[in-house]
Amino acid sequence: MKPAPLLNLLHPLPEKAVDEHFQTLLERPGVRVERIVSDGQTSPPGFWYEQAEDEWVLLLAGSAALEYADGTRVELGVGDSLLIPAGCRHRVAHTAPRTVWLALFCAAGTSGTASGSPA
Amino acid sequence: MKPAPLLNLLHPLPEKAVDEHFQTLLERPGVRVERIVSDGQTSPPGFWYEQAEDEWVLLLAGSAALEYADGTRVELGVGDSLLIPAGCRHRVAHTAPRTVWLALFCAAGTSGTASGSPA
Repeated sequence: MKPAPLLNLLHPLPEKAVDEHFQTLLERPGVRVERIVSDGQTSPPGFWYEQAEDEWVLLLAGSAALEYADGTRVELGVGDSLLIPAGCRHRVAHTAPRTVWLALFCAAGTSGTASGSPA
Repeated sequence: MKPAPLLNLLHPLPEKAVDEHFQTLLERPGVRVERIVSDGQTSPPGFWYEQAEDEWVLLLAGSAALEYADGTRVELGVGDSLLIPAGCRHRVAHTAPRTVWLALFCAAGTSGTASGSPA
């Protein structure tokens, strides 16, 4: 079995566009990994993500802010990672130009923590 | 459900030590995500990893080189990602000081590609 070729997630980036750019990097039973490139896009006012899966995000470039339904705002810089548990209402309040996210979607854990035991 | 606190994967890093530093970031059925901090460590001469799971790696800081059993050497810089299919014999030939890997272990795909359909 040969290794797959290298893929750099930071260079080159797709051209700036109206919409965020999504690329599936890995897909297996129980897990999907995406690269998301943002360029100032945010969630529409009043829009909330409420997902059936846990989402774990890691900011690879740029900066961003998430808001939660309780009003909490979280600023993310390069290297910051965060677990957004399934069902946690959130929206993207800010993204800087050329912001690159790694996003991993997987089955929900029970404790809301990244290392929480599954049901 | 509240989001988990932010965890930065680049700062602070653990103190340099004789062994690489492993931290499990996320564990769910079918997937495990680890941060690995290397400081010049390499696989012992003649040692080959040969894993039952697929491993997807992303270099977050530093630089590194992998070698495969067929003699191929692959140099990784920041942002480089790579799928190492299950059963692919490989070793770590080089790591720079303060090299940070994200490593995701999951069930083997059938095609050896990151987006290959599972069996």
